[in-house]
Amino acid sequence: MKIARYEDGRWSRTDDDVAAEEPLQLLLDGEPLSVIARSPKNEIELALGLLNAERVIKSLADVASLRISAEAHEDERALTVRSDLVESNAVDVRLATAAVRRPRRSFLSSSACGVCGATTMDDLAHDHAPLTPGPVVDARALPPLSERLRERQDVFAKTGVLHAAGLFTTGGELAILREDVGRHNAVDKVVGRALLDRVSLQDKILAVSGRAGYEVVQKAVAAGIPILVAVGAPSTLAVATAQRFGLTLVAFLRGARFNVYSGGARVRGAAG
Amino acid sequence: MKIARYEDGRWSRTDDDVAAEEPLQLLLDGEPLSVIARSPKNEIELALGLLNAERVIKSLADVASLRISAEAHEDERALTVRSDLVESNAVDVRLATAAVRRPRRSFLSSSACGVCGATTMDDLAHDHAPLTPGPVVDARALPPLSERLRERQDVFAKTGVLHAAGLFTTGGELAILREDVGRHNAVDKVVGRALLDRVSLQDKILAVSGRAGYEVVQKAVAAGIPILVAVGAPSTLAVATAQRFGLTLVAFLRGARFNVYSGGARVRGAAG
Repeated sequence: MKIARYEDGRWSRTDDDVAAEEPLQLLLDGEPLSVIARSPKNEIELALGLLNAERVIKSLADVASLRISAEAHEDERALTVRSDLVESNAVDVRLATAAVRRPRRSFLSSSACGVCGATTMDDLAHDHAPLTPGPVVDARALPPLSERLRERQDVFAKTGVLHAAGLFTTGGELAILREDVGRHNAVDKVVGRALLDRVSLQDKILAVSGRAGYEVVQKAVAAGIPILVAVGAPSTLAVATAQRFGLTLVAFLRGARFNVYSGGARVRGAAG
Repeated sequence: MKIARYEDGRWSRTDDDVAAEEPLQLLLDGEPLSVIARSPKNEIELALGLLNAERVIKSLADVASLRISAEAHEDERALTVRSDLVESNAVDVRLATAAVRRPRRSFLSSSACGVCGATTMDDLAHDHAPLTPGPVVDARALPPLSERLRERQDVFAKTGVLHAAGLFTTGGELAILREDVGRHNAVDKVVGRALLDRVSLQDKILAVSGRAGYEVVQKAVAAGIPILVAVGAPSTLAVATAQRFGLTLVAFLRGARFNVYSGGARVRGAAG
């Protein structure tokens, strides 16, 4: 993209890499549900992860089929039927009959976007039991996760804009990494990928490159991931929600240090 | 808040300041519209700014009254009636009769939260004409805005989490500054404050401490603010939207430099 750059009183014309962001229309059984501004690619992961976070589906078994527009960048042939969807960038998720609850009005009114924290903690408690104890990780396993997230990010270095989310084993091995202009999208894509590949979540660590806000905690709880590690800062609502659901919340993961805000029993030494 | 801190193999117990985040229930004429996770304070600004961004209101004249729960932290006596709203943290905006369009289904389904980019560019174009030409700012006026945003931020230094949005004159004078755990909330609060104080927006600069994503551009266009300056990176959708509406989009405002992605005619030297 051609831009004008100003520096110390001088102008130059230059080319600039700008992170791609496009709207994606998400449909449920053919009905428009939400429009998501996201980084292109991995649309099916995003749709499945978001529907899981919003408690519409719990596993792939709840999905009968997926239709995706030809313009989208996805290729999950096992599940999908490409079609002539009118929208230029759209995913339509068809639910298995009687599989799951239809989204309620409250879902439609707000929480299609988890970003606004629209699913209240009580709503969340209605659908999710507290996380089970374990696994326990060694404290020394956590600091390297920040660097591992960063070194695997493709686009960040060029554009300075993408958020990353990574699913790690308790030994620190990267299982899934996704980037997106929206940090919630990155988390949804990771969870969607795990659903597609039937990767277990209840023994994993979710690491995010940004802050640990309420909605990221909510997505971890909804996915059943017991340990959330953030490079950035937490918020009070995030901590309160983590405590209520027994989620291990680690934040400010920088260099050789981090803080444990909730669920210290899963980090060796933190609860002592 | 008591936390466990790990550093170089050692654990310590310490107190940590965590940025406050609470859910706010937004009602429109008594009907629940959205729940917003936000930093406490300035709830009325947030409600008005969000409703303006979502094109439900265009000015204070469209608001008949506001009810706010006693637990909320707001004090705008001129407009509000404190009441016994059931929600512990709630704002109910009563519209002036026939003042404005009721939110459409599509608003309810998604764009109550501008974060997900739910209002498409075409929707935006339906309600907003391109911005008018002018004002023109001197390039040298822009670099100081980043520092001015930062030095006026109260909570950021303690918690590392808050986003700031500031409304500046073209001379670089700060008119309104707001912080929030959500950067969109910070923008909504600034616009809401401007509506409350009848501060003109079409001759101002909006500066944000974070990225210039689609939704921030959308809010600037909806508010009629002609120049948006971001410390962070833009996205392609943000740039395309800025170009379509003639918004001046400046990003990567760091030190003595910045990039102009759209609307260079309003920055002296950029269009040359």
